[in-house]
Amino acid sequence: MITLDGCRALDAGDTLRPLRDHFALPEGVIYLDGNSLGVSPKTTAARVADVITREWGKDLIRSWNDAGWFHLPQRLGNKIAPLIGAGPDEVVATDSTSVNLYKVLSAALTMAAEDAPGRKIIISERSNFPTDLYIADSLCRERGYQLKLVEPNEIVASLNSDAAVLMLTHVNYRLGAMHDMAALTRAAHEAGCLAVWDLAHSAGAVPVDLKGADADFAVGCGYKYFNGGPGAPAFVWVHPKHAQRFRQPLSGWWGHAAPFEFTPDYRPAAGITRYLCGTQPIMSLAALECGLDVFGAAQSLGGMSALRSKSLALTDLFIALVEERCTGHDLGLATPREHAQRGSQVSLSRTEGAYAIVQALIARGVIGDFRAGDGAGHPDILRFGFTPLYVGFEDVWHAVEQLKQVLETAEWKRPEFSQKHAVT
Amino acid sequence: MITLDGCRALDAGDTLRPLRDHFALPEGVIYLDGNSLGVSPKTTAARVADVITREWGKDLIRSWNDAGWFHLPQRLGNKIAPLIGAGPDEVVATDSTSVNLYKVLSAALTMAAEDAPGRKIIISERSNFPTDLYIADSLCRERGYQLKLVEPNEIVASLNSDAAVLMLTHVNYRLGAMHDMAALTRAAHEAGCLAVWDLAHSAGAVPVDLKGADADFAVGCGYKYFNGGPGAPAFVWVHPKHAQRFRQPLSGWWGHAAPFEFTPDYRPAAGITRYLCGTQPIMSLAALECGLDVFGAAQSLGGMSALRSKSLALTDLFIALVEERCTGHDLGLATPREHAQRGSQVSLSRTEGAYAIVQALIARGVIGDFRAGDGAGHPDILRFGFTPLYVGFEDVWHAVEQLKQVLETAEWKRPEFSQKHAVT
Repeated sequence: MITLDGCRALDAGDTLRPLRDHFALPEGVIYLDGNSLGVSPKTTAARVADVITREWGKDLIRSWNDAGWFHLPQRLGNKIAPLIGAGPDEVVATDSTSVNLYKVLSAALTMAAEDAPGRKIIISERSNFPTDLYIADSLCRERGYQLKLVEPNEIVASLNSDAAVLMLTHVNYRLGAMHDMAALTRAAHEAGCLAVWDLAHSAGAVPVDLKGADADFAVGCGYKYFNGGPGAPAFVWVHPKHAQRFRQPLSGWWGHAAPFEFTPDYRPAAGITRYLCGTQPIMSLAALECGLDVFGAAQSLGGMSALRSKSLALTDLFIALVEERCTGHDLGLATPREHAQRGSQVSLSRTEGAYAIVQALIARGVIGDFRAGDGAGHPDILRFGFTPLYVGFEDVWHAVEQLKQVLETAEWKRPEFSQKHAVT
Repeated sequence: MITLDGCRALDAGDTLRPLRDHFALPEGVIYLDGNSLGVSPKTTAARVADVITREWGKDLIRSWNDAGWFHLPQRLGNKIAPLIGAGPDEVVATDSTSVNLYKVLSAALTMAAEDAPGRKIIISERSNFPTDLYIADSLCRERGYQLKLVEPNEIVASLNSDAAVLMLTHVNYRLGAMHDMAALTRAAHEAGCLAVWDLAHSAGAVPVDLKGADADFAVGCGYKYFNGGPGAPAFVWVHPKHAQRFRQPLSGWWGHAAPFEFTPDYRPAAGITRYLCGTQPIMSLAALECGLDVFGAAQSLGGMSALRSKSLALTDLFIALVEERCTGHDLGLATPREHAQRGSQVSLSRTEGAYAIVQALIARGVIGDFRAGDGAGHPDILRFGFTPLYVGFEDVWHAVEQLKQVLETAEWKRPEFSQKHAVT
């Protein structure tokens, strides 16, 4: 039987424990929603204040040069690259995940149209994060493609001679189920398909090896496991063998080979820089860099591999504690039990009251979130993210203890916990 | 003859003078580059610090609801609307100008293809800001259109039966020349063309009346005359009669009618909200709001109309002083002398040394900037922006005095002033 003391012993033996001190964790809160919005690094407030009062306030336009503003997308990209198995000068931090997906999916379709013109289908997962499906739908309409949505176990079989692009999110946002990126990319390539990966729920949470998997294109998020702040700029990677081959349609001046020559003709910059478009929000980029710099500190403690081990230990512990202490409350494990198929979150299904249970937990200081089912095989979900940078084993104990009490006392049935928020 | 005391008297009689106190102006600097990057409002640092430490740091995901993060694009859009002649709920602050131009130009081409399918040309100005031309070029390639670039005096004649869209920047970034939006929009409509306006160098600097002009689409910038901070989010407006008619291609989840239902099918939100795409950078939006709020304070002092009068008085004074005190130095007036054709900047042409003269001025604390000529009729330019919110008449006197000294002493010939920066 797992005990509180046992959990404390795990924290005491956790070599990554010092990383928690890099974050301004709110008091009285166990934060299990870093898969939605990461917490604030302690350095961010001072760094952004310096951008505002000195770099902008005093130095003004000179900071485009002197403070390196203009090259922040590349500088941050180079800090992201080693976390996702990309090389130097292969990643830029810019725009939103949705906008970046539009860029790479456009490039992928252009490439497919040249290399395999008969293929007219984009394959994706039915429960992929909706914005990915919306962007794909848009490009399908524009270019005469069709978006085919399948279940995870149907993906490989769907890769037939009509398929042009396989577009997947590495870790599913609802279930925390992780795809085998290498195997699916291989299957796509064997079928003559390109592979586009969204790393929103994996970058910074699990080891990602884009080049090892020979992926073609990838995008990802700055405000989840990278702790870049609300709406932090996203990132984009293109395999270097493709990066020079195409323009992407959002061909703004930051992607020009010589933006300050102000020539009327577009000439794309070399490499990944051509995936930039317009002027970037500097304060938000500066904040994202603070989040990325914590991974620099994590490097000497074992980096992504050590973070992955801790993440699995945390999610294993949560699953074990829920199964040991919350039996008889109709909680199902929606996240795969297999390590190889699990991201850094655990989703629990429940037929009744999932939303209210999450609200009751939040009232007790345990912050997870709720995702509604679709009435077609996907149940309502209580979602708990375990960011190994700052979540501890004792946190897991207390979270399950609170969940147990919420269920046993049935306090979630109080009317205030059923009131829906506009944004959840 | 104009005197320093005369300039001081103008400041003393300037009813807009109190607005200057809203800004953290750097000491020892006369800042005439607000047309490139506006200065920092005094409120910005504290506001963004509060976003980081309280809204994000303490309240975390709850701030999407409680702090109104999710609706910042609309809230800020409603503060921009009265400054550009738009109605409530017609503007959103989001993404970059380039990305927003891609959205509206896509929608305009879709509309033209339906309403006037034979028309296959986008008309623009050869010296339009390049990113606008790059984005247009991209859409032309995708959709089989042609981008035709003309000189300002050729615009009306170019609006023939092949023209689908007229895309112009209201105030030219190099010359500060302002188009007659109402007349050109009317000419476009009479020719069966749509009118797309970029307000980057006019919004917040000159009165803009989009609905009065019956414009079709518009975009604009947050970090110039709106003082939103480096790379502040841009904005987008669509005439309400068109807004519901089309999807725009960057159909991300923030533009969905019910984003938190997470449905796989895209259903565009009503009105301008469908022009949102992905998650927005909250810190940068919060900073932009501080810039916009100064215009709220300006409202009781006469608003855009009073700001326009002061702007013209400032540029008139600058022109008069340069012509009175800097004769014999080969300076030409590149900005139109006619008020109706002038934005809020003055560009001076010079055949030799324009770059070095700007650098020498910067060394003396007078910040303007340089834009290179194209060797084809457009000369090198010294560019001076006059933001009526914070530039005073005495500033103008001192700026011209420094320019006079730089020219008379020929100190601009010192080698250090010829060294080019990467970003200028």
